[in-house]
Amino acid sequence: MPEMRKDPITGRWTIIAESRARRPHDFSAAKPHRQTRVCPFCEGNEGNTVGEIAAYRQEGTERDKPGWRARVVPNMYPALEIEGALEKRAEGMYDVMNGIGAHEVIIESPLHVASTSDLPEENIRETLWIYRDRLEDLKKDKRLAYGLIFKNVGALAGASLEHTHSQLIALPIVPSNVQEELDGSEAYFRNRGRCVYCDMIRQELRAESRVVLDTPYFLAFCPFASRAPFETWVIPKKHSSHYEQINAEEVEDLAGVLKRTISKIELSLDRPAYNYIVHTAPFAEHALERFHWHIEIIPCLTRAAGFEQGAGFCINPAPPERAAEFMREAERESAES
Amino acid sequence: MPEMRKDPITGRWTIIAESRARRPHDFSAAKPHRQTRVCPFCEGNEGNTVGEIAAYRQEGTERDKPGWRARVVPNMYPALEIEGALEKRAEGMYDVMNGIGAHEVIIESPLHVASTSDLPEENIRETLWIYRDRLEDLKKDKRLAYGLIFKNVGALAGASLEHTHSQLIALPIVPSNVQEELDGSEAYFRNRGRCVYCDMIRQELRAESRVVLDTPYFLAFCPFASRAPFETWVIPKKHSSHYEQINAEEVEDLAGVLKRTISKIELSLDRPAYNYIVHTAPFAEHALERFHWHIEIIPCLTRAAGFEQGAGFCINPAPPERAAEFMREAERESAES
Repeated sequence: MPEMRKDPITGRWTIIAESRARRPHDFSAAKPHRQTRVCPFCEGNEGNTVGEIAAYRQEGTERDKPGWRARVVPNMYPALEIEGALEKRAEGMYDVMNGIGAHEVIIESPLHVASTSDLPEENIRETLWIYRDRLEDLKKDKRLAYGLIFKNVGALAGASLEHTHSQLIALPIVPSNVQEELDGSEAYFRNRGRCVYCDMIRQELRAESRVVLDTPYFLAFCPFASRAPFETWVIPKKHSSHYEQINAEEVEDLAGVLKRTISKIELSLDRPAYNYIVHTAPFAEHALERFHWHIEIIPCLTRAAGFEQGAGFCINPAPPERAAEFMREAERESAES
Repeated sequence: MPEMRKDPITGRWTIIAESRARRPHDFSAAKPHRQTRVCPFCEGNEGNTVGEIAAYRQEGTERDKPGWRARVVPNMYPALEIEGALEKRAEGMYDVMNGIGAHEVIIESPLHVASTSDLPEENIRETLWIYRDRLEDLKKDKRLAYGLIFKNVGALAGASLEHTHSQLIALPIVPSNVQEELDGSEAYFRNRGRCVYCDMIRQELRAESRVVLDTPYFLAFCPFASRAPFETWVIPKKHSSHYEQINAEEVEDLAGVLKRTISKIELSLDRPAYNYIVHTAPFAEHALERFHWHIEIIPCLTRAAGFEQGAGFCINPAPPERAAEFMREAERESAES
């Protein structure tokens, strides 16, 4: 059973998920690398990923068999385990709990492609609905506090398999970065009575210089204090704290926005590895006036070194105004050619 | 002039240090890579790094000429600039200040070696004294709030030059990670009237399982909530909040502890890239009962992916007890062979 341990100074948790490493350098891989020629996420290979949790499939097809369009399976090397009671204890001055949680893989399409930009919009839409379904389902489990959805594309971004997939890790605690956003947006709301994200949307639309895409329901922009070159946030224009409240018009629009935004990043930067992360409110919260769900897309270009680790903030060589300009033009040029 | 921008939600700063990139993919390097066969840090090549800020040199030798044992020069591609007044302004809802600060490189030896473990202890001792000297000097500058000392070893750790060197970035603000440690240790002190780091030293010495080295003045151990495999902290046993208060006995001891600890990491993990960071109190603070300076050494093994970015905490496949055991044995085995 993995273990969650709390740093007594900063309060940050670490998941200690002991690998089966025998020698020290085996630790260099966070999880055993699958040395298989057969992609376990392609149609026909469902036997390599059993225990399908959910799927969108053709009527009349069977669980763990072909006929699906999107599929959720347990991670083969889970960071947390779903079986058992949540136990908390002290170890001297330290706090520990056992690693209860869920670690799911969302296979976004039977197509063996790597990036969201390679997918038909229909696959992206169904992926967005699956995110909603899984959050709705997992939040019923009272041991769980938060569902973190993210996607790693490319080895540099931490992906161990190429076939396009997202992951969902449901945690028994609210992660520190999410808590920091909740606290920061609450302080802003207390002072001004407005959602800080709504204010950002208004200012970005007025300033225009950092806007990448502006559609009826979403804004894609490079944030003013971008931590990484070409960091881009995609945010619903209508205030909403919980991703799972997304509606059909928004899903329709967001699928196109995600595909186009990621294409623009890839056109500008020659298909870099990237991560995206869905920032949404914790399970237990009701609709919050102060928090606003969104997706952060971060290409992997610069390397976090000693400074970033020590300071907790970044040196970014690309001003977001320039990045947004490149990205606005990226599509224009490609459309012209 | 670089610019510091504040995220209005989390309060974290970013340094926007615009590179001279013309095309978007030039941004992939945080700083232009020096394509030179001549190592600018080797003795005889001082012309490649002019404006020596400080040095330990043989009597009678000249600034920016051979004859030095350790040397401090300005970073060629500084993240911050030292000239000018600190100006703060608003840009709509956002906070900005101009990028005033210092970015220095500490060349630790004329020897062209890569790691602290390759250096004679004499060089490490002088490097430790130079850290003290530079902090003492920079804290006189009232525009500056914090001096962050770190070392990147290996390309994966962000080093762009191989020749052994540390860096010091002095900032006009206290970085968020440091503030988090100050706040966390203050909360602990308020509750218990004791320094959390002193408590950790006592518990680790009693538990023994995470201890790597125990000397008269220092303890090297793998922290209970280690974020990365083989993460190791080196901490003075006598309470002290500011690195620059280090005394001669401690420098003597620390040079050996650093060299041996890093050797143990390298023996265990086949010479990985690594970072170390000096955690010390801000310039403006007097001696603090609640904060305790230390050095954190973090090998670069696992890759931070979407989960770590989203959650703000890590999945670590190597329990610190096992890492410490490997490290304690690493030296024993090599001594036996």
